[in-house]
Amino acid sequence: MKSYRKELVFNVPSRRGFINITDQVQACVDESGIKEGLVLVNAMHITASVFINDDESGLHHDFEVWLEKLAPEKPYSQYRHNDFEDNADAHLKRQIMGREVVVAITHGRLDFGPWEQIF
Amino acid sequence: MKSYRKELVFNVPSRRGFINITDQVQACVDESGIKEGLVLVNAMHITASVFINDDESGLHHDFEVWLEKLAPEKPYSQYRHNDFEDNADAHLKRQIMGREVVVAITHGRLDFGPWEQIF
Amino acid sequence: MKSYRKELVFNVPSRRGFINITDQVQACVDESGIKEGLVLVNAMHITASVFINDDESGLHHDFEVWLEKLAPEKPYSQYRHNDFEDNADAHLKRQIMGREVVVAITHGRLDFGPWEQIF
Repeated sequence: MKSYRKELVFNVPSRRGFINITDQVQACVDESGIKEGLVLVNAMHITASVFINDDESGLHHDFEVWLEKLAPEKPYSQYRHNDFEDNADAHLKRQIMGREVVVAITHGRLDFGPWEQIF
Repeated sequence: MKSYRKELVFNVPSRRGFINITDQVQACVDESGIKEGLVLVNAMHITASVFINDDESGLHHDFEVWLEKLAPEKPYSQYRHNDFEDNADAHLKRQIMGREVVVAITHGRLDFGPWEQIF
Repeated sequence: MKSYRKELVFNVPSRRGFINITDQVQACVDESGIKEGLVLVNAMHITASVFINDDESGLHHDFEVWLEKLAPEKPYSQYRHNDFEDNADAHLKRQIMGREVVVAITHGRLDFGPWEQIF
């Protein structure tokens, strides 16, 4: 079985943000030369997510508002984990949004729906 | 490595619904001839989910009520995404329920718990 | 393609609990002799989750409080599924926490971030 691994690094200037990484993932698939198989795309940190959804700025605003409702950042004192850090909410938000995606590769292309993008 | 791809199409008559696709997925595995490996089952649209849970109608009712509590469909005006469409809630619900499942294939069978069914 | 399957059994003395299974999963990878590939780690029951996050007791307390807020165990009468059992909340909580994780194996090691642990 052929395998290929690549680490991509992203700097998010604000506390939370959405980065469309679809093109970079497709570029990795291209580099790998793999035509049929699976690509695993996972965050390498416990407060980050990789997920597949729409690249629409209104929706990303909705995600931000919704995640703050389900797992609010503040007050920090509501979380015991924040005795060490101030990012307990990010650990929770990651459970909603997910750590990883697995995408099929077909004829060398990411094989998903027309509006699906990887973030 | 052997690979096999099949697209299954389902029409849901109502806005939301649960379809047990376990038998169709097992039929795909049978067609593939693969005895040991992994099957990726993913939705091809950003407002749909594939998940594994119990096929019990009371629980599906509970899921419906619960998802409406966590990510209500209405009022539409609460979501910016709905300036374009009316389905922002479906994008959020999909994050809770998940986009895809990966299931082991062992001796040609979907290898999961006795009550696990794919929806 | 090489494949390896192992079933691990855990007994949780209380209704809910967190068990760090990272070392057992790495031991399975060692036994398999697989150096590059993917490991699928999934729960075999519809009321259990496998997820990757931090092994910090304060955070686990936060998860417990948060999951009870999003999908309360009681009153049992709020869920139709509880006409059969009393575990509807566990089915919902599993959707938040996830059923499975897929982790890359690189040079024979679980390939994830420094604080990532499998539960």
